[in-house]
Formats: sequence, structure tokens, C-alpha cells
Amino acid sequence: MIATTEVRHADAPGQFLFVCEHASNAFPEEFGGLGLDEAARQAHVAWDPGALGLARGLSDVLGSPLVAATASRLVYDCNRPPDAPGAMCERSEAFDIPGNLGLDAAARIERTEAVYLPFQAALTRQLARMLARGRRPVLVTIHSFTPLWFGTPRTVELGIIHDTDASFALALADAARDLPLRTALNQPYSAADGVAHTLKLHATPHGLPHAMLEIRNDLIADAAAQAAMAAQLAPVLERARAALPVKGRAA
Amino acid sequence: MIATTEVRHADAPGQFLFVCEHASNAFPEEFGGLGLDEAARQAHVAWDPGALGLARGLSDVLGSPLVAATASRLVYDCNRPPDAPGAMCERSEAFDIPGNLGLDAAARIERTEAVYLPFQAALTRQLARMLARGRRPVLVTIHSFTPLWFGTPRTVELGIIHDTDASFALALADAARDLPLRTALNQPYSAADGVAHTLKLHATPHGLPHAMLEIRNDLIADAAAQAAMAAQLAPVLERARAALPVKGRAA
Repeated sequence: MIATTEVRHADAPGQFLFVCEHASNAFPEEFGGLGLDEAARQAHVAWDPGALGLARGLSDVLGSPLVAATASRLVYDCNRPPDAPGAMCERSEAFDIPGNLGLDAAARIERTEAVYLPFQAALTRQLARMLARGRRPVLVTIHSFTPLWFGTPRTVELGIIHDTDASFALALADAARDLPLRTALNQPYSAADGVAHTLKLHATPHGLPHAMLEIRNDLIADAAAQAAMAAQLAPVLERARAALPVKGRAA
Repeated sequence: MIATTEVRHADAPGQFLFVCEHASNAFPEEFGGLGLDEAARQAHVAWDPGALGLARGLSDVLGSPLVAATASRLVYDCNRPPDAPGAMCERSEAFDIPGNLGLDAAARIERTEAVYLPFQAALTRQLARMLARGRRPVLVTIHSFTPLWFGTPRTVELGIIHDTDASFALALADAARDLPLRTALNQPYSAADGVAHTLKLHATPHGLPHAMLEIRNDLIADAAAQAAMAAQLAPVLERARAALPVKGRAA
């Protein structure tokens, strides 16, 4: 079994639980390179460039755990359920994914067992341990998006996406007003696009406050930019959390 | 690690996925007897008498998988999240649970790791494998309840409970009209009582049709009665499933 999950600061006392599903463009040997050339393996289709560095930075600054998937989302996209075509997509943006064409049930199950289930187990375990201690974290998933979408520039720089409970996303949008970032709710994607799988599985059933953050990837292109962004976003996340009404545990 | 989960007919081709969280009144040696006498260990507080026999019968008749928890719910109630007092309850109905008094964080985490997480892993894996094959099962959890509640008789015999999507529960209530059972929706409990944890984790996020069945336990008191009830309910479940509108996969 390959290591497909990284857990950072598992026992840290912070009030957040960070998740990074598209952290890596590593292709585990057992699945080969899926027939991709180097350009595709470096592109946004394979991972969210910069997201892991930012997520690690937030985990460090806020002293809170991080669960990250460490295989390319083209092998299995951990933010998609096993019956979604996007879980092992045949085509993504401008790229065909030859190694994903016509996967049969056995191949889909093999990917699910190798990548999705270990990631789900790690995240379920991390959250369960926090809940068992009586801690109800804010669940925040960290993503990045491309400055260009089929040639059209995207002007939004920070997107804040939520599942059914918008309370933390709204508090965060409010707290982010002083940032020098063009911020928008439910941009460049929203839950209606099927991007809220992690939130639906791990935040909403427990009534946990949550958000998915989407950062334009040219703003977190190297380690220094990722650290700077983490330093900038951490106090904003903390202010948004402090602004939430105190709520009891779910029944 | 104790075996705290039973998976039956994992690769069966049926259209249901059965779950039985309160299948057993077994007390794994590592947690002792929780200070309970034999009366408490046999009572409804420790398990749902008859539920496992009925669930196995339905799994057999409908050729569908079953995931069951095989430790008493007093050790850990797999239909509750780790932050719910009811996950390791200190008092249940007329019984104090001495071994659950004042559990600290380490003890709660130990129970969570030993019982809840293996059960969650087994259920997540079973469902993920079905989804990866392109099968979207109806998720049905099987429970039983006592004829008397603090001395008052309960007249309902079959309760049908749902989470946010009522479609399968309504179809089932309709299909059950010809049964010689007093049937009621959201009785003797409902999702508002916190009994829908499994449905919230495993059915609702995937948009799967679902129901929690509650059978009065005097009707499934022995193996013959459990088999008869399974034979009676199976075609009703199948009719309800067939009556559902055909829906696509969630995004």
C-alpha cells in the first residue's frame, strides 16, 4: 500500500481542521503515469499548485491539524465520491487522461481502495479524535485555481465556498474585507458544481462550521508566497471563527 | 484489536445496503462488563434485541450486503458521533452504566478507536465499493424498540424514520399499507432525536434513498419470528424501491 495521506499536527490544540485534497502531483508507481506528459503532470489538472504549502502554513500558524492527500487527483480525486466521473476523470480541461479511459469496475475499485479509502479513514479518524475530546473544529479545505480558464482571466483572487450552512463562509467574507484580495462567495465554483464532497461528508453531518477556500494559484506560486498568504489569512480565519455564535454539540 | 464489525454478503448484487448498529450485546474483554448485571446486559439498553436476525434475513432474502456492529452500544453506540453523550452513555432508560461514568478524553478516544472507527471504516468501504461499481444502493438501517416505555405500552409496531430526503420512507410507508403491522412515520423516534447519524454520514451526502426501520422487539423475539418478519418485509422494501423515480448519480 502506498502512503496516500499526510496528517500534520494531529494532536495540536487549535480550533481548525484543515484539509487539502489536491495537495500533490505525485503519481504512485503502481498506477504509472496515466500516459501523461510532463506538461499535464505539472498542470492544475493534476493538483492544486500551492495549496499544500498554504495549508501547511495555516496548520502551523493556527496550531491545528491538517489532513492532505498525497497522490495526484488524476489517480483519484479525494473530493469526489467513487461514482462521480470526476473521481477518476477521463478528460479535464484541455487534457485527455489516457490512463483513465474506460476504467472497468475492478480498476475503479482498486483506485478507490488505494487512495480514497485511506484518505477518508485518516480524515474520519482525525475528526473523530477531536470530537471525542469535546472539540468541534471549523473544517476548512484549501484549494487553488488557475488565473486563466480556457483563455479568460479570472479576476477573483480568494473564493469562499460553503455547503448548506453558510455561517462561517459569511463570517469569513466579512472578516476578509480588509484584505488586499478580491474576494467572492461561491466563486469560481460552488457546491452546485459537486466540489463540496469533503464538506458534505465531514462537516455538515456534524453541524460543524466550514468553508472551502480557493486561492488563485499565481498568488501562492512559491514557498515564500505561500507562507505570506498563510500569515495573512490566519488572523482572518481566527476572527471569523471568533465571530460565530457559540453553538452546542449536535444531538 | 477486537472484531467489532460483521460484513455479510459484501459482493452480493442486490440493490440495498443494510446496516445494524445495535446488533449485539457482547462486551469485548478489554472494556470489561461496564459494571452491569446480567439484567442490564440482556436489556434493550445494551442492544436492539432481534435486529441482527432480521437484518441478516433481509440481507439473505434481498441478496444485499449488511454491515453490523458487533459490540454492545453501551461500549460505543455506532449510531452516535464521538461528541454525543449517547455515544458512551452514563445512564440509559432505567439503568446507570457504572463503567461509563466520568470517562476522560483518553478513554473516549480509546472506545472511539476500538469500536466506532472500525465500524465506520467497514461501512465507508462497503458503500464506496458499491458506488465505484456504479451501484447506488438504498441504505436501510435496522433497529428494534421496546413494547413498554417507562411502563407505557407503545402501539406502533413498525416505525419508518428518514433524514432530510423522505422519498424512500414515504414510498415504504405506502408499500407497507397491506402489512398486518401498525406502521408510522418517524415513530417512536425521529431524526430530531439524533438517531439519524448513520443516515447523515452515509446516505444524505451521496443523495442515496434511505430509511431507518424500527421494529417492536416482541415481534422479532426469536429466530423464527425474525425470519418470518424478513420474509414479510423484503417484498415491501423491494416494492418501495421500485416505486422511486430513477435518479442519476450525485454530482
